[in-house]
Amino acid sequence: MADPRPVGFFDSGVGGLTVLREVLRRLPRESTIYLGDNGRAPYGPRPDEEVIHFATECLDHLASRDVKAIVVACNTASAVALGELRRRYDVPILGVVRPGATAAALATRNRRVGVIATQATVRSRAYFGAIKDENPFIEVYEHATPALVPLVEAGSLDGAEVEAAVARSVAPLLGRHGPSTGIDADAVFPLPAGERIDTLLLGCTHYPLLGEVIARAVGPGVAVIDSASATASALASLLEVQGMATDRTAATHVQLTTGDVDGFRRTSDLLFGSLFPSVESVEVLPLAATGQRGGEAA
Amino acid sequence: MADPRPVGFFDSGVGGLTVLREVLRRLPRESTIYLGDNGRAPYGPRPDEEVIHFATECLDHLASRDVKAIVVACNTASAVALGELRRRYDVPILGVVRPGATAAALATRNRRVGVIATQATVRSRAYFGAIKDENPFIEVYEHATPALVPLVEAGSLDGAEVEAAVARSVAPLLGRHGPSTGIDADAVFPLPAGERIDTLLLGCTHYPLLGEVIARAVGPGVAVIDSASATASALASLLEVQGMATDRTAATHVQLTTGDVDGFRRTSDLLFGSLFPSVESVEVLPLAATGQRGGEAA
Repeated sequence: MADPRPVGFFDSGVGGLTVLREVLRRLPRESTIYLGDNGRAPYGPRPDEEVIHFATECLDHLASRDVKAIVVACNTASAVALGELRRRYDVPILGVVRPGATAAALATRNRRVGVIATQATVRSRAYFGAIKDENPFIEVYEHATPALVPLVEAGSLDGAEVEAAVARSVAPLLGRHGPSTGIDADAVFPLPAGERIDTLLLGCTHYPLLGEVIARAVGPGVAVIDSASATASALASLLEVQGMATDRTAATHVQLTTGDVDGFRRTSDLLFGSLFPSVESVEVLPLAATGQRGGEAA
Repeated sequence: MADPRPVGFFDSGVGGLTVLREVLRRLPRESTIYLGDNGRAPYGPRPDEEVIHFATECLDHLASRDVKAIVVACNTASAVALGELRRRYDVPILGVVRPGATAAALATRNRRVGVIATQATVRSRAYFGAIKDENPFIEVYEHATPALVPLVEAGSLDGAEVEAAVARSVAPLLGRHGPSTGIDADAVFPLPAGERIDTLLLGCTHYPLLGEVIARAVGPGVAVIDSASATASALASLLEVQGMATDRTAATHVQLTTGDVDGFRRTSDLLFGSLFPSVESVEVLPLAATGQRGGEAA
């Protein structure tokens, strides 16, 4: 039953590498193909239709490389496009929203969870629903933090500018805002006065790359949770249960980007050292007009 | 920490009584208030906006009776309105879609699950997403079966007419249909030729009342799963974890219907015998225009 084919990973850019890293720790025998759509990142400010369109183009490319499963390691695409993608392909597709929601629901003690994510993810309310499904007693406070993905995509992972952007991004979830600041304009469910969260869910796979800065900004009283570890567990469990794990020992890894190869390599080197020597440029094909939303296609 | 307040249950009609029955088995100390909107059943053929509107009116009524939690024991309302309802009330709300999906994902061996449900539930694709979240390797075939709820609401639970309606309803999921019959017009994901399901999820809380007829129609090779038991487990777990279970021994039960009291009582007697002697007529208040979709309202 062993299946040596690679697992595909997709993200709008480099953020999904945080999920890939956890998968390599958990499943060192599995081969992988990672596709980052850096040329068109960030996805967060884009309308849903465009996110679905871009994600489909990228998954068409991964599907053409005979992957045995695909991890949509992008919260925006998971929140907005997962249903469409799952209908389009025969290959099983895992998202990151449900694993992240499960991890956050398990982590909170005071039943107050904050979520920072892109605008599109917050707008979808996918985390609200997923966390409430786990435990409807949990209050969920969501806040869109559009400044962070562009920083990560530009390779800015620390320093004064990053500290300031992170501080501004998490302030509304820490009660450090007032009507005069206007900085909670992107919050769908603002934190009421007097409430405090004890868990912050990083609802974007780019954010763990700023994990240390975020942890300092929220302080030791708030657990910072991301979906990478939970997603890796879900993938491991599925491959095992379905008899699709590989028993090969020589895993191969391919990293593809639609954008700047050097920028991608810098982030990849930071996360993996020399494990992935090669990053390739790739061009995804535009969707044929008829296949664009073809529910039963492929 | 014990909380003696009742748990509220809501359904478009009598179907949610199948969930209530499982809850009483699991949690005999809990008091309950059940509200069936029989006067406006079935919900399945209605547009989403109307389902949300009616469900909100009914939950406003339950919330006014100081319930500690609400079970939306109606798949149509769970699939279409759960997000809106959870945003409207402070009281925690459990739906039936996720528990049912979890149960079906655990039950299947050949990773082929059929779902029968109302049109609105199938249209929402809530079961597709929820089952794929559990295990994206599972193929999900959904089929809308609008004939069944009216039968149950009318108290027709067996006999030739019911047998025939059930046989027609499940035929497309058993491969017993051809292009000429046209009876799979309501299937979103029709079963491909040569495939067979080994699990049928009853994606409507009315359908377990036809459970024996359905089991005979699909035959012994197909496990028939409903969300009642899984929903009762989810409620038990939540009340326990959150310290909100009651320690009283004298539970009280109230059944309310917006429709025909005698018809409701017949189904209730069938399920519970004399446990619930009283069924009361109730009128839910129309929503104030301003409160109709008030996301932040309580």
